[in-house]
Amino acid sequence: MIDLRSDTVTKPTPAMRQAAFGAVVGDDVYEEDPTVLELEETAAQMLGKEAAMFVTSGTQGNQIAVLTHCRPGEEVILEAESHIYYYEGATISAFAGVQPRTIAGNRGAMDPQAIAAAIREDDIHQPETSLICLENTHNRAGGAVVPLENMQQIHKLAQERHISVHLDGARLFNAVVATGVDVKQFAACTDSVQICLSKGLGAPVGSLIAGSKTFIKKARKWRKRLGGGIRQAGIIAAPGLVALRTMVDRLVEDHANAKKLAEGLAEIKGLRIENMVETNMVMLHTKEAGMTAKEFVIMLKQQGILASAFNPYTVRLTTHFDVTSEEIDVVLKRVGKAMKQGV
Amino acid sequence: MIDLRSDTVTKPTPAMRQAAFGAVVGDDVYEEDPTVLELEETAAQMLGKEAAMFVTSGTQGNQIAVLTHCRPGEEVILEAESHIYYYEGATISAFAGVQPRTIAGNRGAMDPQAIAAAIREDDIHQPETSLICLENTHNRAGGAVVPLENMQQIHKLAQERHISVHLDGARLFNAVVATGVDVKQFAACTDSVQICLSKGLGAPVGSLIAGSKTFIKKARKWRKRLGGGIRQAGIIAAPGLVALRTMVDRLVEDHANAKKLAEGLAEIKGLRIENMVETNMVMLHTKEAGMTAKEFVIMLKQQGILASAFNPYTVRLTTHFDVTSEEIDVVLKRVGKAMKQGV
Amino acid sequence: MIDLRSDTVTKPTPAMRQAAFGAVVGDDVYEEDPTVLELEETAAQMLGKEAAMFVTSGTQGNQIAVLTHCRPGEEVILEAESHIYYYEGATISAFAGVQPRTIAGNRGAMDPQAIAAAIREDDIHQPETSLICLENTHNRAGGAVVPLENMQQIHKLAQERHISVHLDGARLFNAVVATGVDVKQFAACTDSVQICLSKGLGAPVGSLIAGSKTFIKKARKWRKRLGGGIRQAGIIAAPGLVALRTMVDRLVEDHANAKKLAEGLAEIKGLRIENMVETNMVMLHTKEAGMTAKEFVIMLKQQGILASAFNPYTVRLTTHFDVTSEEIDVVLKRVGKAMKQGV
Amino acid sequence: MIDLRSDTVTKPTPAMRQAAFGAVVGDDVYEEDPTVLELEETAAQMLGKEAAMFVTSGTQGNQIAVLTHCRPGEEVILEAESHIYYYEGATISAFAGVQPRTIAGNRGAMDPQAIAAAIREDDIHQPETSLICLENTHNRAGGAVVPLENMQQIHKLAQERHISVHLDGARLFNAVVATGVDVKQFAACTDSVQICLSKGLGAPVGSLIAGSKTFIKKARKWRKRLGGGIRQAGIIAAPGLVALRTMVDRLVEDHANAKKLAEGLAEIKGLRIENMVETNMVMLHTKEAGMTAKEFVIMLKQQGILASAFNPYTVRLTTHFDVTSEEIDVVLKRVGKAMKQGV
Repeated sequence: MIDLRSDTVTKPTPAMRQAAFGAVVGDDVYEEDPTVLELEETAAQMLGKEAAMFVTSGTQGNQIAVLTHCRPGEEVILEAESHIYYYEGATISAFAGVQPRTIAGNRGAMDPQAIAAAIREDDIHQPETSLICLENTHNRAGGAVVPLENMQQIHKLAQERHISVHLDGARLFNAVVATGVDVKQFAACTDSVQICLSKGLGAPVGSLIAGSKTFIKKARKWRKRLGGGIRQAGIIAAPGLVALRTMVDRLVEDHANAKKLAEGLAEIKGLRIENMVETNMVMLHTKEAGMTAKEFVIMLKQQGILASAFNPYTVRLTTHFDVTSEEIDVVLKRVGKAMKQGV
Repeated sequence: MIDLRSDTVTKPTPAMRQAAFGAVVGDDVYEEDPTVLELEETAAQMLGKEAAMFVTSGTQGNQIAVLTHCRPGEEVILEAESHIYYYEGATISAFAGVQPRTIAGNRGAMDPQAIAAAIREDDIHQPETSLICLENTHNRAGGAVVPLENMQQIHKLAQERHISVHLDGARLFNAVVATGVDVKQFAACTDSVQICLSKGLGAPVGSLIAGSKTFIKKARKWRKRLGGGIRQAGIIAAPGLVALRTMVDRLVEDHANAKKLAEGLAEIKGLRIENMVETNMVMLHTKEAGMTAKEFVIMLKQQGILASAFNPYTVRLTTHFDVTSEEIDVVLKRVGKAMKQGV
Repeated sequence: MIDLRSDTVTKPTPAMRQAAFGAVVGDDVYEEDPTVLELEETAAQMLGKEAAMFVTSGTQGNQIAVLTHCRPGEEVILEAESHIYYYEGATISAFAGVQPRTIAGNRGAMDPQAIAAAIREDDIHQPETSLICLENTHNRAGGAVVPLENMQQIHKLAQERHISVHLDGARLFNAVVATGVDVKQFAACTDSVQICLSKGLGAPVGSLIAGSKTFIKKARKWRKRLGGGIRQAGIIAAPGLVALRTMVDRLVEDHANAKKLAEGLAEIKGLRIENMVETNMVMLHTKEAGMTAKEFVIMLKQQGILASAFNPYTVRLTTHFDVTSEEIDVVLKRVGKAMKQGV
Repeated sequence: MIDLRSDTVTKPTPAMRQAAFGAVVGDDVYEEDPTVLELEETAAQMLGKEAAMFVTSGTQGNQIAVLTHCRPGEEVILEAESHIYYYEGATISAFAGVQPRTIAGNRGAMDPQAIAAAIREDDIHQPETSLICLENTHNRAGGAVVPLENMQQIHKLAQERHISVHLDGARLFNAVVATGVDVKQFAACTDSVQICLSKGLGAPVGSLIAGSKTFIKKARKWRKRLGGGIRQAGIIAAPGLVALRTMVDRLVEDHANAKKLAEGLAEIKGLRIENMVETNMVMLHTKEAGMTAKEFVIMLKQQGILASAFNPYTVRLTTHFDVTSEEIDVVLKRVGKAMKQGV
């Protein structure tokens, strides 16, 4: 099976396993795990933030950020198909008690003017707007890169209106590698940022959120409430350190593989690529092939390929560390053959 | 001052005051206030529902409905500018813990296909869709009537998908009067419906929600939690009964006044009417007059007319029981004169 | 029927009905109802607070206070049988997301040392203590007066620890009348206080909360979220003004009636009074009479007397404006006779 | 340093590290991690439950249970110093919106009659009681074992009243080892049970909750909302399996060490043991030694011993896998000497 469902499926590398095996650990609830502390320090420095905190998942990092920035009855502006809104089980409403105000983006990027128009007035009937959430790269926009300029404009607006900015940077390093922009510059547009170790970077478990010391101090308590206060966390922080230190640059390979995959698929009759394939995701349109996304995914599975049905007629294929350029060739061959045979 | 800000500003009629004065009362927390019981019974019958419950406001009625139908972490589909989403302080998220999924409507009516597409799949990442909220007439769509057919289609879809339907019918009787459709038919498309006594019907305070007996039994406890369990409520229920029994038919006058107002304003150079004026609201576009909505409202105030700035360049004028046809003439004269003088 | 279930059952007086009939009203959501404004001003002055706000019930007032003072995940210290904890449907947890920390009081008064011991430490596992709620007079302690000194000590402690104090003063004027202490002195021990118009004071509907201007400004938005933003509220505020201005001093009669009732009942074989009867409540112990509280209440009903089963063997009898001294004689006669006959 | 602060501080054994190194992993959000599945299956079988789910901490397991069993506005009965109430940041109120009803236990065990009296009546003012939480062994009661009979009585009562029972069994295996009762018997008294791998069992990270298949299916979504849905979780599940399979029986050593420690300390003048030392915790009273708990902890630290200040005059010392019998001798020697010198 060639697994293109998500970059979350990567298996830890031997170096990561070795790191887990040998990790110096302590009780992280007491903030005594040296490996976790080193990981947090490393991430904070990379992102140019005062402090960082290890969390068990991107969702947990995002939720902690919303809980820390907001109070119940406030409103959060985010992109209409952002992960926080679309894929986190309505948790910002269930736990933080905030109402999402969604704006449809252009390849994941929200128009600053649309945001300005969405900020609420001081009115007894209306919630206060207290947070803007960005996502870069943007998953449901096909791994699109949100341009630095867009983020800077939104950040400026937010500062003028005394609104916080959180960045869901689960795949921020894909944006970094795709644009050549320093990760610190993206992070500078935010009050808090979350990055994932377990997606393109290949670590088995975990994410980090970074921000000011005050933010992280408060965030620590919300992490405890979410059950994210764990003990000898060094066992998973150690592979995370390997990921952060050695796996960023190699994301270019995933991007190249995605490009190659997209170009190959585009040549197959009946298939069309929906997105610009800026990073590691290919959004394949299946309608002209006479199949729904779900049917196409089943067909792919019969060919030994795993992918995700994303929309009624959109299949997402994601490249990652465990997929080689050769396997992309195999995928293209198999799909081409299957399509010809009119599966 | 001629007050066209909202139909909520109406003063109680002498008959309503007399009713308050003479009301037979009891302790409604013990369900012993005969006037409240009569009002609830009357409303339930009018709406063709098993039971109804008096609440202190439309917002309270809507929130009780959401709290009763939903659990935290679920998703509610509603129109992008519906009152529940726009004007209720993010309370469905703050208290009920549900996430709104908004759909931009066509004159307040959501496309059933768009709703079908928005219903969530059974997926670990996604919230369950448990409620659809409608609003008829639709306030921010300019008092637009949501057609019965639209409501019927949505109701059918909801039933197929085991999703509840709540109707914010704060101005439902305006839709009834405008279309001639029996209120029971609108209500038949819902699991719960809220109607206001204090808007076009002119009562000083209060709304009702109606539904099945089971729904109302649960709703009663949520009302208590919201602080809506009140004592000798007959004092305000009595004017409410007068409103429900005697004030519905006269809404035609408000509609005629709104039509007259809109036609008159449309003839004034620089002014344009945005909405179809189906009921008692006129949405006036002010940009061509060289004024923002806020500036236009200030200008109107100087002319002795009160109105609401609704959007950056939209002023809403609402007719109601306390505004006569003659006063509409006065409004038109004053606005015409002011516009000519290039205020 | 002589109704001794609660002081909430009082019917509005003719003066109150007249006030409702003639009330000058406006739209209170716009803060334009002159009668409401007058009521709020009057209450603020009586209590020595900067501002006050009309709410539809004591529960609503208490919940608004908790929502305004606290954030989710904090802890509130209150008496183990206080109304907020016992009778408000777990709403402080459901809406405000705070955890109650209960302390068993001595006749309603919590020991300041017990409070000091209950305040949480700065610890990642523990919630922050942000509010102490008092109740005076204390309902489930049998209308007991919490001494001013106790409140002063608690207030001092709270200030030292930067914790807010809210007083559920639903029956505060009973404490005032019973002790002769100025209501301002009780209120001075608090950051916010709630008083009810619809209990001993006899108004049909409503309560007030008072505090600083900042507190009331925030509280106003929470009231809206709870659905307590109402329109021509003057209709119920007017009777409330009559209550506040003319009904406080007459609470002495209720207290005298309660005392008389208690003394009379105590002489009946098999009956015992549990409380000190400081105000308008008599807690009658029924075990020695061979009846549960529920059985005793049924027996009373057969004698034309309504009362509340409070605990397995405790019946509460409450005096109020609609019960005369003569009716107390009737109650005593009927109960005495019934007990003799070994009902 | 000899670390007696908690049994959470244990470092993973070589076997656990080896297991982490070699773990077969998959993406557990897709339920495809074989090691996690094996751990869940193993735990379910041990506990005699249909299904189990891996969570990142005991707090997360407990919170998921409350979220799954309850709705906002309900009440949960638990022991007044139970971990869920005392040490989980008020989260059952902040997230699940439920109100705790606390009962002071006798060495951690709640009197079934007290529970029966605390269950709420069907009354508009009162929350519904929907859950009883037990804790065995009970941390703040000094590692006390809650007797099986007590749990059986409570379970019977709960079933009669249609109330769920959750067991915080973070240290359930300590109770099992101390009593010889099969863990299945304890678990049979519950609808859900949480056990920790990272305390006495020595695994670096993680807990499990077990219950019916329906319960676990719902719980899985709440885990996602809490951010506990993790990826190649086998890395930490593998050491967890080692813990569950090989570390239970050796808890007897911790108990023997605790007993020895307690007996030794009791012989030192000025020291007194507060608890019965049934398992691995010693609660040392420091008042007669003229020190507060915090002072005593500082003194211990100067002697190279770490312990926890639990109450103003109570220090908790916990034995665990990383403390040997010889180290207990050292602790006793050092404390005895320090006390003699009147530190």
